[in-house]
Amino acid sequence: MTEKTIAKQDISFKQLERGQCGDRISLADCLTNLKYNADGLIPVIAQQYDSGEVLMLAWMNQAAIEETLNTGQVCYWSRSRQSYWRKGESSGNWQKLKSMKIDCDGDTLLLAVDQQGAACHTARRHCFYLVVNDNSVVINDAPMVDPDTLYK
Amino acid sequence: MTEKTIAKQDISFKQLERGQCGDRISLADCLTNLKYNADGLIPVIAQQYDSGEVLMLAWMNQAAIEETLNTGQVCYWSRSRQSYWRKGESSGNWQKLKSMKIDCDGDTLLLAVDQQGAACHTARRHCFYLVVNDNSVVINDAPMVDPDTLYK
Repeated sequence: MTEKTIAKQDISFKQLERGQCGDRISLADCLTNLKYNADGLIPVIAQQYDSGEVLMLAWMNQAAIEETLNTGQVCYWSRSRQSYWRKGESSGNWQKLKSMKIDCDGDTLLLAVDQQGAACHTARRHCFYLVVNDNSVVINDAPMVDPDTLYK
Repeated sequence: MTEKTIAKQDISFKQLERGQCGDRISLADCLTNLKYNADGLIPVIAQQYDSGEVLMLAWMNQAAIEETLNTGQVCYWSRSRQSYWRKGESSGNWQKLKSMKIDCDGDTLLLAVDQQGAACHTARRHCFYLVVNDNSVVINDAPMVDPDTLYK
């Protein structure tokens, strides 16, 4: 066992930079020390675990991160609705959590997920359906189903 | 030619949702209408174009987006240094732009890039080297080179 546990009082993302593979810190201490913005939120990238497709970017507060880890179903914080956004609750298009990674600065999360159906509220598989093409932006993807049927 | 050009006065990301594949809007109008935050910034995901690996998340203002498109070399806005951050300028680890996509709400960009060497300032290939494992967070990746040699 060559792994090293980094002491609680040492937790800063700057200090982790020089850590070795296998070094570990407490999850609870790490989540407390994430760099949430002024609204208490952190950006979260969701990537389909097997295809590598980037599905969407949304935001979480610490409670949403903890719920996501505890339930295995991804829960964001909706900035527009100012409420928890349990992905799939109204559409049935759940995101199952496969893994959660944190970046070097502790200010972004990357989730590997298994996305049921469409990730995008427009009923497209992912949210990045607008592609820059010279001096235009072109719609590049079609909805998977009629968007009017997506939400119950 | 079945493509439709959406009139300038119609540009809102909400209206684009119901557009068809191939519908296009002007790039300049689109960039003006992105949902920049209070600091004039938008989050940008960089993904390695061939492997699908998510390398990092950083931020751009409109001028950085335009420079990136004009030069083909990715230019961010550094929030810590409050200056343009031409990725690779001091490390040599350039990001070459392959494509730029915009999300459904116009508040996130996804870049396909070709990353030279390490994307992360810790000399790791990508920034997401901390992985949640039960009640711990574990360092999951090693630097590609000695980080002390990364910056000239």
